[in-house]
Amino acid sequence: MPIPAPNLYPPFNILRLSHVELAVTDLARSRAFYVDTLGLQVTDEDDQAIYLRAMEERGHHCIVLRKADAPCARDLGFKLFSEEDLERAAAFFRARDLPVDWVDRPYQSRTFRTRDPLGIPLEFYARMDRLPPIHQKYALYRGVKPLRIDHFNCFSPDVDASVAFYNEIGFRVTEYTEDEESGRLWAAWTHRKGGVHDLAFTNGTGPRLHHTAFWVPTPLNIIDLLDLMSTTGWVDNIERGPGRHGISNAFFLYIRDPDGHRIEIYCSDYQTVDPDLEPIKWDLKDPQRQTLWGAPAPRSWFEEGSLFEGQAPVPARLNAQPIIAP
Amino acid sequence: MPIPAPNLYPPFNILRLSHVELAVTDLARSRAFYVDTLGLQVTDEDDQAIYLRAMEERGHHCIVLRKADAPCARDLGFKLFSEEDLERAAAFFRARDLPVDWVDRPYQSRTFRTRDPLGIPLEFYARMDRLPPIHQKYALYRGVKPLRIDHFNCFSPDVDASVAFYNEIGFRVTEYTEDEESGRLWAAWTHRKGGVHDLAFTNGTGPRLHHTAFWVPTPLNIIDLLDLMSTTGWVDNIERGPGRHGISNAFFLYIRDPDGHRIEIYCSDYQTVDPDLEPIKWDLKDPQRQTLWGAPAPRSWFEEGSLFEGQAPVPARLNAQPIIAP
Amino acid sequence: MPIPAPNLYPPFNILRLSHVELAVTDLARSRAFYVDTLGLQVTDEDDQAIYLRAMEERGHHCIVLRKADAPCARDLGFKLFSEEDLERAAAFFRARDLPVDWVDRPYQSRTFRTRDPLGIPLEFYARMDRLPPIHQKYALYRGVKPLRIDHFNCFSPDVDASVAFYNEIGFRVTEYTEDEESGRLWAAWTHRKGGVHDLAFTNGTGPRLHHTAFWVPTPLNIIDLLDLMSTTGWVDNIERGPGRHGISNAFFLYIRDPDGHRIEIYCSDYQTVDPDLEPIKWDLKDPQRQTLWGAPAPRSWFEEGSLFEGQAPVPARLNAQPIIAP
Amino acid sequence: MPIPAPNLYPPFNILRLSHVELAVTDLARSRAFYVDTLGLQVTDEDDQAIYLRAMEERGHHCIVLRKADAPCARDLGFKLFSEEDLERAAAFFRARDLPVDWVDRPYQSRTFRTRDPLGIPLEFYARMDRLPPIHQKYALYRGVKPLRIDHFNCFSPDVDASVAFYNEIGFRVTEYTEDEESGRLWAAWTHRKGGVHDLAFTNGTGPRLHHTAFWVPTPLNIIDLLDLMSTTGWVDNIERGPGRHGISNAFFLYIRDPDGHRIEIYCSDYQTVDPDLEPIKWDLKDPQRQTLWGAPAPRSWFEEGSLFEGQAPVPARLNAQPIIAP
Ligand SMILES: [Ca+2]
Ligand SMILES: [Fe+2]
Ligand SMILES: [Fe+2]
Ligand SMILES: [Fe+2]
Ligand SMILES: [Fe+2]
Repeated sequence: MPIPAPNLYPPFNILRLSHVELAVTDLARSRAFYVDTLGLQVTDEDDQAIYLRAMEERGHHCIVLRKADAPCARDLGFKLFSEEDLERAAAFFRARDLPVDWVDRPYQSRTFRTRDPLGIPLEFYARMDRLPPIHQKYALYRGVKPLRIDHFNCFSPDVDASVAFYNEIGFRVTEYTEDEESGRLWAAWTHRKGGVHDLAFTNGTGPRLHHTAFWVPTPLNIIDLLDLMSTTGWVDNIERGPGRHGISNAFFLYIRDPDGHRIEIYCSDYQTVDPDLEPIKWDLKDPQRQTLWGAPAPRSWFEEGSLFEGQAPVPARLNAQPIIAP
Repeated sequence: MPIPAPNLYPPFNILRLSHVELAVTDLARSRAFYVDTLGLQVTDEDDQAIYLRAMEERGHHCIVLRKADAPCARDLGFKLFSEEDLERAAAFFRARDLPVDWVDRPYQSRTFRTRDPLGIPLEFYARMDRLPPIHQKYALYRGVKPLRIDHFNCFSPDVDASVAFYNEIGFRVTEYTEDEESGRLWAAWTHRKGGVHDLAFTNGTGPRLHHTAFWVPTPLNIIDLLDLMSTTGWVDNIERGPGRHGISNAFFLYIRDPDGHRIEIYCSDYQTVDPDLEPIKWDLKDPQRQTLWGAPAPRSWFEEGSLFEGQAPVPARLNAQPIIAP
Repeated sequence: MPIPAPNLYPPFNILRLSHVELAVTDLARSRAFYVDTLGLQVTDEDDQAIYLRAMEERGHHCIVLRKADAPCARDLGFKLFSEEDLERAAAFFRARDLPVDWVDRPYQSRTFRTRDPLGIPLEFYARMDRLPPIHQKYALYRGVKPLRIDHFNCFSPDVDASVAFYNEIGFRVTEYTEDEESGRLWAAWTHRKGGVHDLAFTNGTGPRLHHTAFWVPTPLNIIDLLDLMSTTGWVDNIERGPGRHGISNAFFLYIRDPDGHRIEIYCSDYQTVDPDLEPIKWDLKDPQRQTLWGAPAPRSWFEEGSLFEGQAPVPARLNAQPIIAP
Repeated sequence: MPIPAPNLYPPFNILRLSHVELAVTDLARSRAFYVDTLGLQVTDEDDQAIYLRAMEERGHHCIVLRKADAPCARDLGFKLFSEEDLERAAAFFRARDLPVDWVDRPYQSRTFRTRDPLGIPLEFYARMDRLPPIHQKYALYRGVKPLRIDHFNCFSPDVDASVAFYNEIGFRVTEYTEDEESGRLWAAWTHRKGGVHDLAFTNGTGPRLHHTAFWVPTPLNIIDLLDLMSTTGWVDNIERGPGRHGISNAFFLYIRDPDGHRIEIYCSDYQTVDPDLEPIKWDLKDPQRQTLWGAPAPRSWFEEGSLFEGQAPVPARLNAQPIIAP
């Protein structure tokens, strides 16, 4: 099944991924991870929730941590270009018989929740409260010096179906992995904002949130984070990396938060604003697609992910086997 | 005169800056600078011209060096989203009584030349020949490891007028410098592609091309270039830096090619895709706006630039005085 | 068995490790590895041997590659402070009934070969031909930008015995790993030149050369090397890393040359010139001693090494089990 | 006047520079500079003095800040190899009719104060209290991540005389600047510990302390410090740099503490343990000797320095003119 031609004139204009809410079981412990270790900045907090932004973001939040009895991922948030796009988006989802629930979200203007056809919870809005810039307040930089949220990656039980849907609403595929035998997609990277991805899909029991990624200045910041985590009690939360991805060419590290939510630290992919950018194809059997340097990912990386609230995952349609570390 | 409200629905869709042709007097010497020293990749060359691209670019060229008796800058090239945008652009310029000359450009699809109201030569096209990716051919990386063309900066004799025009065709101001006394703009940074700028203007005798900038991976690549230039006969071509800009927060270096054309090496500004991004205002008297670390720019940086072919510059309307190195 | 007290007034003054000769089976292929990929500089070559130095070295060679039917490691070379020290060294080895064979070594002044009590071949000299500095010839820097040879690491079948001997001739232990059950040494790092080590020993079938290490400027150069090797046919020669060592705190990468000789790329350990520097003790069961970030080394790293010419290895006395990657 | 031949068998064994006490007028303000901004670690403090060490140091202090009515520099501290060397050193200075005053220094074993022939106050000791390692306590790293004190640089009114004296006690010249006209030394870099210098001299009204330097991991840490100082009220304390030195090949930054004491941040020079290392000669008129990239130092850098307590400076014998920024 080939990559679909990009829809260059989508029904509504999604600017970029924006934020996600993670249900966590111990707010203090999560704060130690996201604030004291990663270096995200608190923009609001009480005994139920913590709102965070990264250093160059002016929107109020990119991560919301909310206390819960069990961990899960909630809506993947996307920012639209305008209020008109919000109306068009709502009409689009309604026309597909997908839910459109208008909700009150603190610090966001009109917002609706929906689900994609495979069950991933989404929320759309056009304007969020703006905060003063802090990217030149260097005394605030800590941890890995996170600059901005970069992308979501989800397990999908049917990557072809996921790509077909998001392609329709304007996400453009930049790179993809094909299972040569079945001709089906194993994974795909799709973007709106001009980087390698806002949203990627990996074959697996799903839908589940595989990871949320943050952009940092250079690979040395990732090395700093590894040194810090290794000597402050977080060494077991390091899951994979550091390394260079074959796909995306980015430098990466995967870590797990106290509830197991996976965070990727990421930098140095490439610009993708050209509508005629040719997607790059990788073969599932290519050991360098995951890590250019050849190191396979551990089993946990292929199997574990965050459940989306209210959505039971189903097994993947495609049963191919990636290269897993022994 | 305030910054105009951004035109979020411009008459045609400019994707990004694309390329520029520089007239140079000694092709071999320019090759030594751009290819052997900076590390740009040759995509075509003969005894009259050299076409270059940077490491992550798939379009055929971002710089064309063409042999001439005297150096000058030629058209600033911009890529449009589609052929329909090209028609709309041509109509727009015609309606303004600005020239629309359809020209044959090697490796580009239909292209027209025009001038902005102050005389800067421009060319627009929608599709350029695509080349295979080389961003993972690490054996080819040399010099400063240039990844992509990032922006043009032009002297304008009337920055308010330049901003007004480009604002109308969709360039959004991200940062600007105001002369407090006159309330007029001293400089402005405007973007299409989601970074701090595709096109900036600085008050001065103009129009002239102040510099063309290339994006590189990290500040360490800029240090590598300085070490290389300093020990291969190019030390006198180092003009300013390295440093951190106050405006844009980018790490920079300014160098001069064998004909005096100014090149900026640049990295680590921030993402600007949000249409509600508030422009950041700087005061002309703020010594940290040019260099966050306080070092003033040398006189040459304020006074010298490349003439645009066929366009005599005029003195600047604004006569304010920036901080110049003694 | 405790670490012995350092011998601060050894019988002769060893300055530092200096060089090693590696027997290789395909000189052209080894040249592609050491010169084109790592970036070592050729100081002499013919159809039998290649002499190499690193960028800040002024001695003629730190590695000699010599064509042979089968790969092996030859003498570990050490530079002495003076010709008087050379005499004292020869007297010392003779008094131990260890061989003292005066040999002609190109580019070296008077040199003798010997073996340590466990059979490692050594050579000592005081002066080597000096070459003009090239550390500021930045056009010559390539690959990983190797600055200098840093250390040798050998498998020893009896690390306690090895440490006892080298301690007597002035090597000072900076860090060591103890097998808690037996109280015996698993590994030790010993220095002369003021870094963490010139010579280290690891428990294992030996004596064999485990690796030769080169010092590079920063971790980013190691990342550059990984990118280069991964895309020029050397991906299978990447064995372990990159990572931060617990022991030494250095940033490291292990690679294998075309004959399997192991090379470490290494940077950022610490200064050890104080004679009262307390050795740091690590437990064999501490997963962070090898890699501060927790990743275990692969089996090959514990089992494979270069034979020393003319020296059959014997099994290790200590049978403890380190943590090996599954 | 040529560089003297190195004295390879000096009368006593100096290991390395160790520490210096700076008289400061506002202890809280100095703490903000050295601790909060540079990132040195407090090892003791009261209302009169603050003791500091850098991250990889295990000796108790490398800088002592002591409250005083007026700023000045006090003894340059050097660590000797043994107590026997301390006796030999005392005898040496007494034989030269130089003072030998045994003093109580907190955290140091037996210590004597003296002065060199030109009046620089010195102190010598062999053992200092040792503290547990903190180089792997990454949560403590702040500011520029200072790893260790690296060198002192002093104005000398007679660099030839200074070099002659320190050469006699074993300091070896690594690089030097000669005034071609007079054949006299303008500046010299001399070492004990195996780097480019422990102690350097620059022609000028003296003796005065020109600067104290700290070693940091990479140039990026220096960029981090510049960003931090520029946005926390210290921008005016940035004096020169960043840049690459011609001499030493190190990456540098010069900053001034609240009392004007000059601190250099420094990394990546080269190893100098070979006794046959040839000193590198630079001409005073070479613009790249100060900064490889060509930027001249500002006038303050040539004229300002810290007075040594109780020592009136005298004008330099040599009246040559270096290249000063306009
Ligand atoms: Ca190269
Ligand atoms: Fe990702
Ligand atoms: Fe620029
Ligand atoms: Fe090693
Ligand atoms: Fe210095």
